[in-house]
Amino acid sequence: MATIDLTSDVVTLTAALVDIASESLSEQEIADAVEEALGRLHHLELVRDGHTIVARTSLGRGERVVIAGHLDTVPANANFPSRLEDGVLHGLGSCDMKGGVAVALLLAATVADPVRDVTYVFYEAEEIAAEFNGLGRLARERPELLDGDFAILMEPSDAGVEAGCQGTMRVDVRTTGERAHAARSWAGSNAIHALAPVLARLDSYAPRQVEIDGLTYREGLNAVGIRGGVAGNVVPDEAVVTVNYRFAPDRSEAEAHQHLQEVFEGFGLTITDSAPGALPGLSRPAAAEFVAAVGAEPRPKFGWTDVAQFTQLGIPAVNYGPGDPVYAHKADEQVPVEHLHRVLSTLQKWLTT
Amino acid sequence: MATIDLTSDVVTLTAALVDIASESLSEQEIADAVEEALGRLHHLELVRDGHTIVARTSLGRGERVVIAGHLDTVPANANFPSRLEDGVLHGLGSCDMKGGVAVALLLAATVADPVRDVTYVFYEAEEIAAEFNGLGRLARERPELLDGDFAILMEPSDAGVEAGCQGTMRVDVRTTGERAHAARSWAGSNAIHALAPVLARLDSYAPRQVEIDGLTYREGLNAVGIRGGVAGNVVPDEAVVTVNYRFAPDRSEAEAHQHLQEVFEGFGLTITDSAPGALPGLSRPAAAEFVAAVGAEPRPKFGWTDVAQFTQLGIPAVNYGPGDPVYAHKADEQVPVEHLHRVLSTLQKWLTT
Repeated sequence: MATIDLTSDVVTLTAALVDIASESLSEQEIADAVEEALGRLHHLELVRDGHTIVARTSLGRGERVVIAGHLDTVPANANFPSRLEDGVLHGLGSCDMKGGVAVALLLAATVADPVRDVTYVFYEAEEIAAEFNGLGRLARERPELLDGDFAILMEPSDAGVEAGCQGTMRVDVRTTGERAHAARSWAGSNAIHALAPVLARLDSYAPRQVEIDGLTYREGLNAVGIRGGVAGNVVPDEAVVTVNYRFAPDRSEAEAHQHLQEVFEGFGLTITDSAPGALPGLSRPAAAEFVAAVGAEPRPKFGWTDVAQFTQLGIPAVNYGPGDPVYAHKADEQVPVEHLHRVLSTLQKWLTT
Repeated sequence: MATIDLTSDVVTLTAALVDIASESLSEQEIADAVEEALGRLHHLELVRDGHTIVARTSLGRGERVVIAGHLDTVPANANFPSRLEDGVLHGLGSCDMKGGVAVALLLAATVADPVRDVTYVFYEAEEIAAEFNGLGRLARERPELLDGDFAILMEPSDAGVEAGCQGTMRVDVRTTGERAHAARSWAGSNAIHALAPVLARLDSYAPRQVEIDGLTYREGLNAVGIRGGVAGNVVPDEAVVTVNYRFAPDRSEAEAHQHLQEVFEGFGLTITDSAPGALPGLSRPAAAEFVAAVGAEPRPKFGWTDVAQFTQLGIPAVNYGPGDPVYAHKADEQVPVEHLHRVLSTLQKWLTT
């Protein structure tokens, strides 16, 4: 069993977390290590639910903040294990988001007497379909565990504050045809060829940009999967392209769906996954106070993050974590050592003064 | 052990052959039955090689004809065993090609003194990858067993003469891009979107039609598979479409490849499978005489068949067998009783006059 040492510095701890493989749905080992390490901290109450761990102070403070991070990563891409080089820690999950998890774990270990009560949440399955998401499960089944006045999701945000998040919707665009032997293809109708206009529309699509609360959100429409084919000598009768639409938070899921129906008019769409965006909500007091304490200009969040889960529970939330999100899910995933130290000390200061 | 009776009529014999299961690579039982039955015919010399059986007359005639059929079938599809109904024999392999095998076995049994020497070949593993093909193995290792002036492959041809066959080439057309998180898709480059022009060219492709020896060959260019995608939230960095080109026999494999390079100019191609076509060769005397004897208008063969194996050995060859090839590999596979009788009597007459 892997173990982690909460007396290590934040870089060593991040590297140790990266070196515990934890692709979505394979989080048992990392969750066990986190549970074991947090179990040694007697100022925290621990709850485990699946591979999701909640650790809380109960000091009776006037305010409670939730600090959350997911334990899973996308599949490895020749970037496992970690490697430290020139002040940058490289490796799968270093940016998204084991650096943030390391910061949260060290806050839990080092700030035994915070001025605000804290609920730490380390959860599973953020990188895959929403139904598996550990934070979502808590929000549905045990929302009292997520209670708070403000939430910080430690997703990579370039060590700045990112507010709101875009929604995401995945649809399958399906074409049908008629099978035939490839040697007599005129007897059939090729469903893969019928995808040509779908790919052409995707290729020429111009994504929208929207300004909300002074932040500019940039949308995206991408094929994330394509499949079709029966056998090497058969004209295929079905083909599917899976499209992911990332939409600005001024659009509801219903409006996003409507837009996709317009883009792919003439083709059959099936929604396979959907999550709403979150408006930045920077006008709420708890959010505004945190932003002032960090002292950085907020930016819009592009990726869908679980900020939206908190928004739906009525809890103001921001992203604030180490790492440039541009490296998330990339082969050269990385986090600057300086970010890890800076985010940790900023939050330590905010929780103690 | 199954046995077959070469004193039965051609319909009974076809049904008996259908009732011996012989999916590719499981031909032992049917090959044993064929060997045992042919072994009783003292006018034939027998050679067995694996589950492939060669039986020859050696009468010193001026001309030798090869009559060949494969013993294997594709997997059953709720169409086993045989069933005779309203003048049609139904069942797995009835069309492709146990009807033809039954005709050849009855020729071997009933024409003891042909005017042309005959080499009968009953071979294994035609329905799977070329490396297993029993006829191909003989052609490589014991080509003397296939010597002849003319060959008749008893593949289903609707009881007509089909000449030549088209070549087939499969290529992978690959696009590459750069991975990125789908929420920040502008940081990456989408390999699936990059397939748009490939599908557009396939969709608008006008296949060539070529006339050779009075037969019109109709080509085809089809996507038979498409794949791409890393995860539901990742801009994919690779996508592949597998294309099958069926080309008329006036084109060599090299020319077919050259054509595909022109069609997909700007994209990387990898050949994954290739087999040459066979020119109809109807101008050769042996072929022309056979066609005249059968008295039917020859047609072009679209699917690739082992006719090409004989062509490569320099032996003119045609397909001539009972059954409409449209029923090959289908759940409702069938052969008309009338075809079985007609093809048998035509060949009996041709071998005796």
